[in-house]
Amino acid sequence: MNAKLLLLTLPLLPATATADEGMWLPSQTAQIGDKMKAAGLQMDPAKLGDFKAPPLNAIVSLGGCSAAFLSNEGLVATNHHCVYGSIQYNSKPGQDYLTDGFMAKTNADEVPAEPGSRIFVYEDLRDVTRDMMRGIAPTLAGKARFDRLDANRKGLIAACEKQPSRRCDVRPYFGGSLYLLQQQLEIKDVRLVYAPTGGVGNFGGETDNWMWPRHTGDWGFYRAYVAPDGSSAPYDKANVPYRNKAKLTIAREGVKDGDFVMVAGFPGVTNRLATAAEAKFNYATFAPADQKMRSDYADLILRETANDPAEAIKYASIVRGVENYKKKILGEIAGADAIDLNGRKAREEAAYRAWVQADPARARQYGASVAALDAVIAENQAAQMDGLRFNALTRAQLLTAARIAYRWAKEREKPDAQREANYQDRDRTPRVEQLIRIERRYVPRVDRAIFEQALTEYRKASATARNPAFEAKLAAIGMDRLYAQTKLADTATRVGWLDKPASAFEASDDPFIQLAVAMYPAEIAAETRAKDREGRIQAARSTYLAGMRVYGDSIGKPLYPDANGSLRFTYGNVGGKARDGQIWTPFTTAEGLLAKQTGRGDFNAPATFIAALKAKDWGSYAHPTLKTLPINYLSNVDITNGNSGSSTLNARGEFVGLAFDGTLDGVIADWAVDPARLTTIHADSRFMLWTMDKVDGAGRLLTEMGVR
Amino acid sequence: MNAKLLLLTLPLLPATATADEGMWLPSQTAQIGDKMKAAGLQMDPAKLGDFKAPPLNAIVSLGGCSAAFLSNEGLVATNHHCVYGSIQYNSKPGQDYLTDGFMAKTNADEVPAEPGSRIFVYEDLRDVTRDMMRGIAPTLAGKARFDRLDANRKGLIAACEKQPSRRCDVRPYFGGSLYLLQQQLEIKDVRLVYAPTGGVGNFGGETDNWMWPRHTGDWGFYRAYVAPDGSSAPYDKANVPYRNKAKLTIAREGVKDGDFVMVAGFPGVTNRLATAAEAKFNYATFAPADQKMRSDYADLILRETANDPAEAIKYASIVRGVENYKKKILGEIAGADAIDLNGRKAREEAAYRAWVQADPARARQYGASVAALDAVIAENQAAQMDGLRFNALTRAQLLTAARIAYRWAKEREKPDAQREANYQDRDRTPRVEQLIRIERRYVPRVDRAIFEQALTEYRKASATARNPAFEAKLAAIGMDRLYAQTKLADTATRVGWLDKPASAFEASDDPFIQLAVAMYPAEIAAETRAKDREGRIQAARSTYLAGMRVYGDSIGKPLYPDANGSLRFTYGNVGGKARDGQIWTPFTTAEGLLAKQTGRGDFNAPATFIAALKAKDWGSYAHPTLKTLPINYLSNVDITNGNSGSSTLNARGEFVGLAFDGTLDGVIADWAVDPARLTTIHADSRFMLWTMDKVDGAGRLLTEMGVR
Repeated sequence: MNAKLLLLTLPLLPATATADEGMWLPSQTAQIGDKMKAAGLQMDPAKLGDFKAPPLNAIVSLGGCSAAFLSNEGLVATNHHCVYGSIQYNSKPGQDYLTDGFMAKTNADEVPAEPGSRIFVYEDLRDVTRDMMRGIAPTLAGKARFDRLDANRKGLIAACEKQPSRRCDVRPYFGGSLYLLQQQLEIKDVRLVYAPTGGVGNFGGETDNWMWPRHTGDWGFYRAYVAPDGSSAPYDKANVPYRNKAKLTIAREGVKDGDFVMVAGFPGVTNRLATAAEAKFNYATFAPADQKMRSDYADLILRETANDPAEAIKYASIVRGVENYKKKILGEIAGADAIDLNGRKAREEAAYRAWVQADPARARQYGASVAALDAVIAENQAAQMDGLRFNALTRAQLLTAARIAYRWAKEREKPDAQREANYQDRDRTPRVEQLIRIERRYVPRVDRAIFEQALTEYRKASATARNPAFEAKLAAIGMDRLYAQTKLADTATRVGWLDKPASAFEASDDPFIQLAVAMYPAEIAAETRAKDREGRIQAARSTYLAGMRVYGDSIGKPLYPDANGSLRFTYGNVGGKARDGQIWTPFTTAEGLLAKQTGRGDFNAPATFIAALKAKDWGSYAHPTLKTLPINYLSNVDITNGNSGSSTLNARGEFVGLAFDGTLDGVIADWAVDPARLTTIHADSRFMLWTMDKVDGAGRLLTEMGVR
Repeated sequence: MNAKLLLLTLPLLPATATADEGMWLPSQTAQIGDKMKAAGLQMDPAKLGDFKAPPLNAIVSLGGCSAAFLSNEGLVATNHHCVYGSIQYNSKPGQDYLTDGFMAKTNADEVPAEPGSRIFVYEDLRDVTRDMMRGIAPTLAGKARFDRLDANRKGLIAACEKQPSRRCDVRPYFGGSLYLLQQQLEIKDVRLVYAPTGGVGNFGGETDNWMWPRHTGDWGFYRAYVAPDGSSAPYDKANVPYRNKAKLTIAREGVKDGDFVMVAGFPGVTNRLATAAEAKFNYATFAPADQKMRSDYADLILRETANDPAEAIKYASIVRGVENYKKKILGEIAGADAIDLNGRKAREEAAYRAWVQADPARARQYGASVAALDAVIAENQAAQMDGLRFNALTRAQLLTAARIAYRWAKEREKPDAQREANYQDRDRTPRVEQLIRIERRYVPRVDRAIFEQALTEYRKASATARNPAFEAKLAAIGMDRLYAQTKLADTATRVGWLDKPASAFEASDDPFIQLAVAMYPAEIAAETRAKDREGRIQAARSTYLAGMRVYGDSIGKPLYPDANGSLRFTYGNVGGKARDGQIWTPFTTAEGLLAKQTGRGDFNAPATFIAALKAKDWGSYAHPTLKTLPINYLSNVDITNGNSGSSTLNARGEFVGLAFDGTLDGVIADWAVDPARLTTIHADSRFMLWTMDKVDGAGRLLTEMGVR
């Protein structure tokens, strides 16, 4: 689960709750309180939903990963793979933090995280469904509906962001039958504090990724910095550590088999509420194509950078994300077959639809949405395939830069409230950082090869989705001139385009800018078609799922919304799993790590770490009954991408580790949960603390965290 | 464990018996009888060593794999990977038995196995140590000792082979302190009867190789044919099925957790009696170099044959063997570290050597051998590395053919008894078959690339080991001419050389023949040096290990000899294993196979098989408590390469499956046994019978085997 979450606009299974399944909203914690108590919770369940109280006010988002404060000085723990981009950003030949790890000796030694790094502290979450639906009649459809929802959303966000240092967002739940406005304090000065050596933080590498038994030290630390007056500010040397309101207490004892654990974090995307047709299309058509494209993409980069370590470092983070995702998709495809996703979805869907038809009032209320949803979904499938092909072009980094800059210029011609999402004034800093970030991930020869591969994919799209003006312009320029004459490889030039008027673009002789300008009209037309579909989908799905919520309550299985990157609770217990020919026992140990260590490839922890493990000086970090250092453990909490970096909490809400992965046979849970397959892998807090204490010289952090 | 065994002359850990460890000689079965009874044996242990009685007279060798008669009509069961070469040999584009499997509808449809295929039926095994030591004084050393041993051995074999259809051999045990003469009936007409589809027989492929959980249908069937008069004869249409004296009974019930199982077969090479220095050298130096060479070799072939399926089929068997072995070596290197092989060997060796020195009589008897063995081993290490490099040249197939043919001519100049092993009259057929076999595994372009890679390895050998005459001749000919002008690619031409006099070779203008002639003098000189070392090693090691046998008996841990391709017994129990973070449970099931099936790559069983599994029509083949079809199971019997294809027998000596692999963490057992790591994987007889019955239409074989 190493890929940072990209928020996809993909659709959404009837998630009928079982013992441990569920990504619950904070407001639902009271509703599942009895079940949590039965599982072992030793706190007031209702309190778990309180943003003013621990543990919730110590949980933060990194905008793609989850994290938590472990001190009152802004110290944040997350996964190694969530700070990987920042380690890479600060590495260069001769200063290889990816391999050697990074430990700032003092606060002053902490280095800026990669551009765009953020820490978001939740301040509030409230129901704005009525505000969102203002002016929207049930009959309002297509693009008009989309536009009205968009305008309402922007208005709510703008009003919210009048408060200082706030980042606000309105997200749809249950297909848009519920909208919640979330308010977060946005910390812009994020610094890398500590990362273990790559041989520990990524022990097992791709070989062990999504696998159990596992022995990965998947932790890393950031610190939040603010201006001396306490306000949120970009990086500045004079900034000071953020004094957060609450932190997680490090549990005095770690977990043991059967213990209650819970995770609060930001799961990215699930599609459990999707229709049977959507699931079938995904696994029969979309996912296999997506997997093949990612596989080709990673292979190409590896081939192109094979002979130059500096180039390989530049593309390491991209390759890692792609490799991870392609493995996950393969696991999903296998899992869909194994749990008979098609049959299961069809049965569940038939039951709900029969319930709708069984009662005339229900049939009147929800019946039309069933047919409408099925129709627009069928139409949407072709568009999804086209989008997959077309979006391969975004991998050509200077083309993407030119398109962002020109779009920025075009959107600036409108009043802020009317601009597209991601192109409002509030989005300027992320766009600047996006343009800057390219500098450490760009090699012209490699980018050109990527672009050429992307063009091959693009050409498989339908005639509707292809862009003749783009093709004509590209043919006129030619690949050689494109890369020889562009000035966009220079960061200052690239970023400088962001403030120029559209006319400057249209007059430019930079070939990538010309390409972006040529593409624009057809892009806008395609976007308009997409908005029309989205408006119709929202109209149908919000009603369809509103009905399904009533149905869920009626059969005693309350629904939780699909993951959408917002804060959720999940709970379960530490425990093993029975698999064919094997039983996964809940803990791995130092001895198992040593047995895997080969000193080569993915199993190459550094000699000092290995020597310390062999010395067995566990101190207070040993597992009480295993009598050795626990490394990773299993639980059945329900997480997905985006939960990476989430602190794992015990029955009293104390820190006992970090969730960092699932197992490949469980990834199908993004579409449908088979409780026997719910498997989350956690880095044991004792492993982390022992390594910080005995190997990595992180004593100052342990003191700061109150561990010693 | 898919590589057919090559008998290496590598050395040999103090194998002190524990509960289940041991590759025991038939004559030792009485000695371990009490332990076998305690483990669950329900037969008279002494009877197990009787060649005239079942089960022993049903166990046969394939000369690299093990097998057993399952009917009275010569029907032999072994592993799919042991008949793989024969499936490949009979496949061609449009007739792909590797993928589609092979099932002969009648005896007449059975096809010849690949050239060189043999079935060896044990007739006798007796101690000839006194005959071997005739004329050998304790002081006789070096090449003179080697030559005398060689002459004695040849004399014993020649006398034995005067009996019709016999293949005889004298093999050293305990470093040559014991020699046994084995007599086998040699069946030369071997035919392929049945192999499951590649998707079943090799399910899991390289991904699952050496792994658990496993789901491989690793079985295949040959039939022994003889002349109508019952004598052994080469393939002839008029030949008839061999009427063997005994067959294994198929157990009415399969095995369950904890059941006693035993395996009788032909383990190839172990080095458990090697010295600490030999073990250390192997894992620090030899094995890593060997692994790298094999890896490069396989990569090269895959690259060269990537675009042509016909070429890929030609090299499939070679690649498979190489891939398998390189994975095993990696496992051994990791295992050596994990069990602290160096420390362990050093401690065991020190204890034995202290015992020698603790008594003046023992010191007199064995003391000198300790120093002598250490000295010659040190000297031998450089030669082993050189041999590794030099022998890469044997991969160039026409060069090897030319060298064999010329050597054959040179040896024929001597009386038969004085010729080198493998070049006596008795060896003519195997040499002819070796020359023929090349035709289905040779592509000039690929062979040339292999030869060039081998030359790079060869050039890393020491000056002593390099062959200047070979180098000069090769430079004079040049690679282009070598491949353009040789006629050896033609099978008739190649085989025709075997009967020509040496002078014809010396006058030949075939460039490969010229190369072989040029190489010859230095080859003979190198062989003479090797014989001198071997003579000294035999003198020292035979005394050293004779002392260790006395030592073993004195501490109540009788020694068994290292594996040397001869018949051995091992016993144990069906059972799981605890591993870090997991427990391997003893059985895999149909459901687990279905969960792995992706329809792609290594997990691509055919649709008809998958449909039959999903239909769950287990009949009498279900496991009684698991209530489903068992696929593979685990035991702790002690096997290695060469045991592949061994029938697994229950407490009454009945057939319950086929041993086919171990797990990677256990392969270090070739050098030292950690009982916790002894893990053998068996194909469950119920899986085999069900597939034959319900999927592969092998009813006639089931009837023949008395199953129905």
